[in-house]
Amino acid sequence: MKNTIGTSVSLTVFGESHGAAIGAVIDGLAPGIPVDEEFISAQLSKRRPSGKISTSRVEQDRFSILSGVFNGKTTGTPLTIIIPNENTKSSDYTVGPRLARPGHADYTASLKYHGFEDFRGGGHFSGRVTAAIVAAGAIAISALNSKGIKIGTHIKSCGGITDREFGNIPEEIDMLNGLDFAVLDPEIAGAMKEKIESAASEGDSVGGVLETAVTGFPGGVGEPIFDTVEGLLAHALFGIPAVKGVEFGDGFKLAGMRGSEANDPIENKNGRINMKTNRAGGVNGGITNGMPIVFSCAIKPTPSIFKTQDTVDLATRENAVLSLKGRHDPAIIHRARVVVDSVAAIVLCDLLAGRFGTDYLSGRAD
Amino acid sequence: MKNTIGTSVSLTVFGESHGAAIGAVIDGLAPGIPVDEEFISAQLSKRRPSGKISTSRVEQDRFSILSGVFNGKTTGTPLTIIIPNENTKSSDYTVGPRLARPGHADYTASLKYHGFEDFRGGGHFSGRVTAAIVAAGAIAISALNSKGIKIGTHIKSCGGITDREFGNIPEEIDMLNGLDFAVLDPEIAGAMKEKIESAASEGDSVGGVLETAVTGFPGGVGEPIFDTVEGLLAHALFGIPAVKGVEFGDGFKLAGMRGSEANDPIENKNGRINMKTNRAGGVNGGITNGMPIVFSCAIKPTPSIFKTQDTVDLATRENAVLSLKGRHDPAIIHRARVVVDSVAAIVLCDLLAGRFGTDYLSGRAD
Amino acid sequence: MKNTIGTSVSLTVFGESHGAAIGAVIDGLAPGIPVDEEFISAQLSKRRPSGKISTSRVEQDRFSILSGVFNGKTTGTPLTIIIPNENTKSSDYTVGPRLARPGHADYTASLKYHGFEDFRGGGHFSGRVTAAIVAAGAIAISALNSKGIKIGTHIKSCGGITDREFGNIPEEIDMLNGLDFAVLDPEIAGAMKEKIESAASEGDSVGGVLETAVTGFPGGVGEPIFDTVEGLLAHALFGIPAVKGVEFGDGFKLAGMRGSEANDPIENKNGRINMKTNRAGGVNGGITNGMPIVFSCAIKPTPSIFKTQDTVDLATRENAVLSLKGRHDPAIIHRARVVVDSVAAIVLCDLLAGRFGTDYLSGRAD
Amino acid sequence: MKNTIGTSVSLTVFGESHGAAIGAVIDGLAPGIPVDEEFISAQLSKRRPSGKISTSRVEQDRFSILSGVFNGKTTGTPLTIIIPNENTKSSDYTVGPRLARPGHADYTASLKYHGFEDFRGGGHFSGRVTAAIVAAGAIAISALNSKGIKIGTHIKSCGGITDREFGNIPEEIDMLNGLDFAVLDPEIAGAMKEKIESAASEGDSVGGVLETAVTGFPGGVGEPIFDTVEGLLAHALFGIPAVKGVEFGDGFKLAGMRGSEANDPIENKNGRINMKTNRAGGVNGGITNGMPIVFSCAIKPTPSIFKTQDTVDLATRENAVLSLKGRHDPAIIHRARVVVDSVAAIVLCDLLAGRFGTDYLSGRAD
Repeated sequence: MKNTIGTSVSLTVFGESHGAAIGAVIDGLAPGIPVDEEFISAQLSKRRPSGKISTSRVEQDRFSILSGVFNGKTTGTPLTIIIPNENTKSSDYTVGPRLARPGHADYTASLKYHGFEDFRGGGHFSGRVTAAIVAAGAIAISALNSKGIKIGTHIKSCGGITDREFGNIPEEIDMLNGLDFAVLDPEIAGAMKEKIESAASEGDSVGGVLETAVTGFPGGVGEPIFDTVEGLLAHALFGIPAVKGVEFGDGFKLAGMRGSEANDPIENKNGRINMKTNRAGGVNGGITNGMPIVFSCAIKPTPSIFKTQDTVDLATRENAVLSLKGRHDPAIIHRARVVVDSVAAIVLCDLLAGRFGTDYLSGRAD
Repeated sequence: MKNTIGTSVSLTVFGESHGAAIGAVIDGLAPGIPVDEEFISAQLSKRRPSGKISTSRVEQDRFSILSGVFNGKTTGTPLTIIIPNENTKSSDYTVGPRLARPGHADYTASLKYHGFEDFRGGGHFSGRVTAAIVAAGAIAISALNSKGIKIGTHIKSCGGITDREFGNIPEEIDMLNGLDFAVLDPEIAGAMKEKIESAASEGDSVGGVLETAVTGFPGGVGEPIFDTVEGLLAHALFGIPAVKGVEFGDGFKLAGMRGSEANDPIENKNGRINMKTNRAGGVNGGITNGMPIVFSCAIKPTPSIFKTQDTVDLATRENAVLSLKGRHDPAIIHRARVVVDSVAAIVLCDLLAGRFGTDYLSGRAD
Repeated sequence: MKNTIGTSVSLTVFGESHGAAIGAVIDGLAPGIPVDEEFISAQLSKRRPSGKISTSRVEQDRFSILSGVFNGKTTGTPLTIIIPNENTKSSDYTVGPRLARPGHADYTASLKYHGFEDFRGGGHFSGRVTAAIVAAGAIAISALNSKGIKIGTHIKSCGGITDREFGNIPEEIDMLNGLDFAVLDPEIAGAMKEKIESAASEGDSVGGVLETAVTGFPGGVGEPIFDTVEGLLAHALFGIPAVKGVEFGDGFKLAGMRGSEANDPIENKNGRINMKTNRAGGVNGGITNGMPIVFSCAIKPTPSIFKTQDTVDLATRENAVLSLKGRHDPAIIHRARVVVDSVAAIVLCDLLAGRFGTDYLSGRAD
Repeated sequence: MKNTIGTSVSLTVFGESHGAAIGAVIDGLAPGIPVDEEFISAQLSKRRPSGKISTSRVEQDRFSILSGVFNGKTTGTPLTIIIPNENTKSSDYTVGPRLARPGHADYTASLKYHGFEDFRGGGHFSGRVTAAIVAAGAIAISALNSKGIKIGTHIKSCGGITDREFGNIPEEIDMLNGLDFAVLDPEIAGAMKEKIESAASEGDSVGGVLETAVTGFPGGVGEPIFDTVEGLLAHALFGIPAVKGVEFGDGFKLAGMRGSEANDPIENKNGRINMKTNRAGGVNGGITNGMPIVFSCAIKPTPSIFKTQDTVDLATRENAVLSLKGRHDPAIIHRARVVVDSVAAIVLCDLLAGRFGTDYLSGRAD
C-alpha cells in the first residue's frame, strides 16, 4: 500500500514540497464525527515553523476539505483534505548540478525513481507532507477525544537537555497540547531553545527524543503476533521523516533491567484492575492493558545543515562538496511532536474501529 | 491480517504452546528455491534451549513440510511447515486459580478473548511459536543467501555487559551464524552467561539488546511514507515476544548528535557510490542506500521469574501473590537472535519480491 | 496475499493434491464460537465424491485441528485445520511426457512456476484443496447460524435441466442443507443425474449454475466503491476452481430489463422496511439492504474428460494428443455447492467482523 | 481498504456528486510513465454525457493533477488527480422529504451512515465519481499501451439489440477506442440508440452487457486461489455502480456446455503456444495463458426513472410514492464502457507490477 497506513481506518498521503498541493485521504472513519476546522488550523499552527528555531519558509496551510464532510460532520466516506503549496522558492533548492544532500533521500530516491522524482525541496520526501498528516490527524484526534481518549507528546530530550518524566498524565496532556514548545518542565524550554539557536548559529542542527502518552484507551485491543499495538504504531511512526527509533514504555532501558524490575505488578484497586507501574507502556503481548500507552521516538537532527559536506553529483556520479543555501530548520523536534500525535491518532482509530466496529467512533446516539 | 506479515511474500504464524502443533505458512516465495532441511534443523537448534541459561523444556522441533515443496525446491505455492508440540507439561503451568503473570499477556489475553484463550503455557503468546517463525525464516534466509545477501545478529548487550561493535560485517555475519551464543568478542561470552546464571540463581532474569546487520541488499528498495524499510521491519520485529524497542543505525544515539555528526557523507569510491559512515543504518527516506542495513532490538528480561509477585486472579479479579513453578528461561536473548534474523529475512524477501517481481528470488536460470 | 482472502476474518488455503496434506488457517474469528467436529465432517461429506456421478477417488477427509480451538470453542487466535491426503494414485496422473490438460492450469502453472510446480493431480490447482475450504467454512457457517444467519445453495441448472426458483428461502435453505444433491424441486434430481451419467458414459462432463441465498444478514454492511459486498464475494468465489461467472440477484437478466422492471420497490411493512422484490439480490450500492443476499455462480464443465484432446507437451513444447486415464468427475457441481457456501460464509464473517467488531460473532454473553 | 483497490498499484477514489471535487490517488505506478493530459481529456469525454441518450448535466471535467507528475512523467510517488464539480443543481435532487430512490443506495447508505451521508445527487454513490476513475485509468491505459497491451470494450447488448462477436481483436480494440458509441457492428448503433431514446420517452431506462478484451498481456500472471485474475478483476469491476454480474470468456454459457466443448485445445503454432479457442477468456486456474483476456459485465438499467415508484420516506420511515424530477440518464452503458476499461487497466497494472516488479511499466531505458 506504500503511502497508505491502516486497515479499518486508513490514511493515504500524497504530494511534493514544490508541487501544486499536498494532501491526505482518510477512509473508514465513522460517520457523524464533528469536523472542527479551527482545531485543524490550530494543529497545523503547532507544526508551522516560527521564530529563530525554525525555517523561514512559512506556509499559511490553508487547507480545503474536498470530500467526506457534510454539514460539518464526517460522512463515513473518504475524507480528502488538501493544502496548496504557496511559499515555494525552488531556486533555493537548485544546488547546481544535483548534489545529493547527505542524510536526505536524494540519493535513494534516484535509485528508486531513476531520476523521474520531483527533487525540488525533497519532493515527496519533504517534511512538508507531514502538514497533510497533521490536518488529517486532527480529525482522528477529535474522534478519540469524543471517546475520552487523550494524546499528547513532550520533548523528552533535545540538544542534551532532558525534560522531566510524565507524572499525572491526563492533566499533563492537556497542558502540553496548549504549548507551542511542548515540555513538561517549563523551566527547561529556554535552555532547549538556546541549544537549537546555538546549533543554528554554527550552521548545524540538533535532534531529540519525543515521548507520547495516550490515556483512556481501552484494554484488550491489538493482536498477538505481527499486528501488535507496538508493531502497528511503529510501522506508521517510522513513516515520519527523521524518526530512527521507536520504543514502548521503558523501551531500551528494559533491556538492562532484571525481570523483577521490569515486570509491572498487577493489582485490583477499587474494583479496577491496573498495573502498579507502567514499564511496558500499556501493552503486553501486543494487546493494550488499559494503562496509558507510552512510547518514544528518536528524532535525528535535521539533515539540512550549512556546513560543507562531502557528497556526489547525481548526474555525473562524481565526488563533490555541498554547501547548502536557503531556508532550513536547525531543529524539527518541536514541530514533529504534533505529527507524532497525528500519526498515532490515526493508528489508534484504526485499532478501535477494527476491534469494536466502524460505528464505535461515531457521534451518533446508540 | 493479525498473525500475518507481508504483502508480496507473507508469513502467517499459528499455534499454541500446549496445542497439537505450531506452524507457519509462507506464501509468495519464488518457485525453485532449494529447501535445505538440515539448515532448517540447524536454525531451530540455535533457538532451542540448552544449558543452565535456558529452560529445561526442550522440544525436538521435528518439523514437517506439508505443502509448497516438490523435489526439494519451493513450488511457489503456499509453503506450510508444522512442528508438533511434544514435551508439554501442562501441570507446571496450572498455577491454581489462574493468576495473571506480570509482564505476560495473561491479563490482556483475557480482556481480548474473554476467557476462551488457551492459557496453557501462554498459549498463542508463548515464545514457543517463534520456532515456527525460525523454520519458515530458514527458507527465506536460504533464498537471500542465494542472492548474496547475508544476515546476522549479535548480542550487543546483556546483563550490563556490552559486545564490541560491528567491524568487517560480511565476515562477522558468517562467524556469528556459526555460534550458539552470538557475540563478536568471544572474550565476553563467558561474562554474559555468568550474568544470566547469576540472575537465574536468584530466581530472576535478564534482557539485552540484539543488533542485526544485513549485507548485499540492493539499494533503491522501500517506500517513502509508511511502507518504509524501517516501518516494515519494525512492524514485524515487534511481533517477536519481548521486543520493546527497535532502532536503525545509531538510532536513539542520533537524537543526541548534531546534523554534522549524524549525516553520512556520500562518496564515489572506485565507481561505486557509498556512504563514508553508516549512522543511518542503510536506509534514507525509507529506502535502502546500498550500505548494510543495521538495526537493534531491545529485548526485555524474561517475565517468568521465580520471585513472588503481586497480581490478580483472573477468575475472581481479587488481589493475589504469584510464586511461579516450572521450567523457565532466565534469558532468551541468545535464543531470540535467530528469531530476529528469521523475521527480518521474511520482510526482506517481501521487499525484494515487491520491488523486483516474484521471480527475483527464484533459483531458475534467467 | 495470494492464497488468502479477507481482512477482519481471513482464510489462507494451502496444499497440493498429492502432497502430505491440504489445510487452511482462519484468523480473526471471534473467541467462543463452538467448533462442532461432527458438523465439519458432515460438510466434508457433502463435498466428498460418491456414486456414478463423481470420481472414484474417495478421501476419508480425516481432519485435524492444530490450533485455535480450546475446550471445543474458538480461542480467537489462528485456527488451523489440516486434512492429510490418503488415497493418492500418482501413477494415474502420469500422462507420459507431461501433456498439458486443456481447461486445466497445467500450462499456466508452467508459465508461472517454471516447472517447479507440483503437477501431480493438478497440485495446488486441484479441486482437492476445496476440502480445506469446506472444513474451515463449516466453522464460519456455525458462527453465522448462531446469529440467525442461514446460507444455502441449489443447483439452478445442470446439463440443460433447470431447477425451480427460490420461494420461501429460510425453509428452503434448511431443506437444501439436508440434501446430498441440492435441488429445490425433488422431481428433477433424477433427470439431472441422468444427464451427468450420460455425459460420463461418453467420456465427457457437464457444468451448471449454482444459486446461493443468505437470510438473516443485517443491512448496512459493505462499502460503496471497491469493497462492495458483490466485489468481496466475487473475489473469493472466483477462487473456487471452475467458477467462470458470478452475478447478484437477477444479474445478467437485469441487463435486458428496463429500470421500471429492475428497480425493487421499497415499502414499510409492519414497521420493517423491505423491498417488494429482490432483483438486486440484497445489495444496493455495494451495501446490504436487509433482503436475502442472492447470487449465482457459473460452474464450467469438469475439464478432465476421456475424449482425446489436442494439446502440447510441456517438456518439448511439441503438439500432442491427450487421452486421459484415471479417476475423474463427470460433474462437480453437486459437490461444489458446499464449497460456495463455505467461501461465502468466510466472506460474510469478514464483513460482519469489520462492521460490528471482532466480538460480534462471539459466543460470549454481552 | 474500502474505497481502494490494488496492492502493488492501488487506486483510491473519493468525492461526492455535489461536493467540492471528486478525485483519485494512484499509488505504486512506475516512475517515468508519460502523462498525456490530452488523452486523459479524451477518455473523460467518452464518459461525459451527450445527446438525447444521456443526462443534461454536463460537467467540463477540468481535472488537475496535484501530485506525482513531474516534467510530464510519473514520479513513482502517489499521483492525485481531482475534478471539481461545477454544474451541480442540488435543488433537482431535493425530493421533498428524503424519499429513498428504488435501485439506488439511498436506503442502504442511511443504514450504514445513519443519516450523516451526503445524499445530494447520490453523494459518494453517484456515477459521478467514475469520472475520477476514468482520469486515473487513462494513465494506467497509457502505461499498458507502452508495453503493447491494448484494452477495449464494446456494447455486447443493449435494449434487446445484440452486437456481433469479437473477431480480429487488436484491430477492433483500436476501432472501438475511436468511437463514442462503442459497437463492433456500426449498423446496430442506431437501433440501440433508438431503444434508449424510446425508453427515455417513456420515462424509463435500459441496461445492457459490456464485453471487454485485452490483448498483449503476458501469460503466467495471477494467483491460483483467491488472487486469481478473475477474482481481482471482478472485485474491482463490481465497484462500478450498476455492474451486477461479471463473467470471463464464455462465462455463464460454459455452464451449459460439455467439457469437450468448453475446453480450449492447446497448440504450438509456429513456436508459440496458444489455444485454438478462447472460451476460458484467457485465464486458467486464475493465471493468464497469453490469450486475450475477455470478460463481460452486466449493467443494470439506470435506476433513476421518471415513472412513479413505491418507496419510503427515510426521515419518517413511512410509505410514499416517488416521482423523480431533474436530469437523468436513460442509459449509462455507452458511458460506462470507458469506466470498465479504466478499472480493468488499474487491476492489470497492479498484476504486472506484482509479478514483474515496480519498474516493469517504467518508461526508463533498462
